[in-house]
Amino acid sequence: MTSPFESSWRGGPSVGALGEFGLIARIRERIGPPSAALVLGPGDDAALLSVPAGWDLVLTCDIQLEGRHFSPRWMTPKEVGARAATVNLSDAAAMGAVPVAALVSLGLPPSLPVAVTDALCDGLLAALAPHGAALAGGNITAAESLIVDVTLAARVEAGRALRRAGARAGDVVFVTGYPGCAAAGLATLEADDALWARLAERVGRAPGDLRARFRLHHAAPVARLAAGRFLVENEAASAAIDTSDGLGGDLAHVAEESGVRIELREAYLPVDPTLIELGALLGTDPLAWVLGASDDYELAFTAPRAKADLVLAMGEALRLPVAPIGEVVAGAAGVELRRADGTSLPVTGGWDHLR
Amino acid sequence: MTSPFESSWRGGPSVGALGEFGLIARIRERIGPPSAALVLGPGDDAALLSVPAGWDLVLTCDIQLEGRHFSPRWMTPKEVGARAATVNLSDAAAMGAVPVAALVSLGLPPSLPVAVTDALCDGLLAALAPHGAALAGGNITAAESLIVDVTLAARVEAGRALRRAGARAGDVVFVTGYPGCAAAGLATLEADDALWARLAERVGRAPGDLRARFRLHHAAPVARLAAGRFLVENEAASAAIDTSDGLGGDLAHVAEESGVRIELREAYLPVDPTLIELGALLGTDPLAWVLGASDDYELAFTAPRAKADLVLAMGEALRLPVAPIGEVVAGAAGVELRRADGTSLPVTGGWDHLR
Repeated sequence: MTSPFESSWRGGPSVGALGEFGLIARIRERIGPPSAALVLGPGDDAALLSVPAGWDLVLTCDIQLEGRHFSPRWMTPKEVGARAATVNLSDAAAMGAVPVAALVSLGLPPSLPVAVTDALCDGLLAALAPHGAALAGGNITAAESLIVDVTLAARVEAGRALRRAGARAGDVVFVTGYPGCAAAGLATLEADDALWARLAERVGRAPGDLRARFRLHHAAPVARLAAGRFLVENEAASAAIDTSDGLGGDLAHVAEESGVRIELREAYLPVDPTLIELGALLGTDPLAWVLGASDDYELAFTAPRAKADLVLAMGEALRLPVAPIGEVVAGAAGVELRRADGTSLPVTGGWDHLR
Repeated sequence: MTSPFESSWRGGPSVGALGEFGLIARIRERIGPPSAALVLGPGDDAALLSVPAGWDLVLTCDIQLEGRHFSPRWMTPKEVGARAATVNLSDAAAMGAVPVAALVSLGLPPSLPVAVTDALCDGLLAALAPHGAALAGGNITAAESLIVDVTLAARVEAGRALRRAGARAGDVVFVTGYPGCAAAGLATLEADDALWARLAERVGRAPGDLRARFRLHHAAPVARLAAGRFLVENEAASAAIDTSDGLGGDLAHVAEESGVRIELREAYLPVDPTLIELGALLGTDPLAWVLGASDDYELAFTAPRAKADLVLAMGEALRLPVAPIGEVVAGAAGVELRRADGTSLPVTGGWDHLR
């Protein structure tokens, strides 16, 4: 089917004609003057940042490849830039950190329009700026297809970072938002109008709105930075991770690193009602989306039972859905799901990039 | 012609069979326990570093693509890993910084042998460890061909970093080592035995040694970290850059950022004697290698005339060739070469990744 987004990747002069240094100058203009934390931005051999005393530095990177992590058919260049920043901001959120600055390695086909790199850059800045993070540097090379690798530097009070290790038996397991929507969004990118019409009938919304909403779950994730900061500032969480590979697989990392067992309750899992209807139409168990590979960039975390009310208050204060979904128990490291009928299933999987 | 290096990329089980998380566990084992500056290494959502008070953080990244920055025909996996770290260490050297920790984004064909990622990892660690830098994290994805993107964090005394801006009229221009050898090494990777035999006759060395030496200039560069630190600790340099794109083009960046003109003297340029003989055999002006696109990762820097003796003493102390190659003058930003015959040539070029 035709895509309304492909045209955003075409037209105008190419980056090859502009050249590497012309493109760097153009990006520097878009970035503007450096912020207080940034001593030296793009244009030198490296960027310079100042980290205040008493804070640790948080470093993370995530590479996005055309055709593997995103398709020009279903995302605009600005969305690709914003998403490349957001997946890293989400790692900072999972540590409870404050973003400071990002670097970007760009691999660009020389025929790529300059308008595309302009939009990519705008997307990076649009995702970074609201959190006070600068685009501090990077490097550019020619490539067969688009590569966007963002490194994010953030800061967190020394010794206070949220880690995957730290969950203890008796803790409550929480998740923000409605995991699984990104997987459903990815699965339905190429869905035809008939599907959306049938879904619209079931849930009483316009087909175009539904299509747009599910695409955005995949194309325009949101990093839960405010939640991460709340958890650090209130010492509310014992362990945390962002759901970049899928809730089940990511909680398995927490279980592994903490040396605990996590029991999820099916009845407690937040399942978006539209996801249930969509699953019925496609013959997919919505739990496969909720627990399986899905890059929602929600926060999954554990908290001592005494902090549970504080966590629920956080959800209200931030206008953020936060659901208790299970508990931490002693036992072999792993995750299991207690079904409504009392039976238990081991939860495995999540996304493996090499398989 | 056949390559003795290609076999180092073949054999044994693949990373696809091992899976992403098996591979991450394997890399963590190779890395060992974290150093003092590293609060938290690989295995969480991000790495945690502590930056001492009074130091700025230096951040740089550089992406290396198979077929574009390196060829499996002429480099071993360990060399690719070491070089990916070294090109970033060289940026730290150009800022006068002390390396702290690196992240690596790996794009891996699922069929790639695990032995190759083992060797890549060993190369990264072999390049980082002597400078006290840890491998602190990263991410892994599947890709069509090998991608290695390293981000390096380093530290430098606040306000003391060497920058491209800062050169002033009257300063002396210096360069370490013998730039151009990497370009000659790249140009002769596929050269046949006859060339090396003829060169050997001219310079009185064994053909195999010459071939190996020029390949290493391309495949195994060295970052001039000790020189960068000497220049910062002794406040000896007014501006600095590493010669990653070529001496002429990189000095043009210094001229541009400093708003000065740089006059190089042909008679002063350090030209490796073997490079002159090789140029004669290939019909190449060796100056094209010395000034043009060549990724030697030497340091080019400017210093006030009063510091010139200190700079030459640095060369002796570090057993490092350091040559004064020209001077900084007032005038339109740019670089020119004064030939032995008294004429002048504008120096342009250097490597543009998009052209």
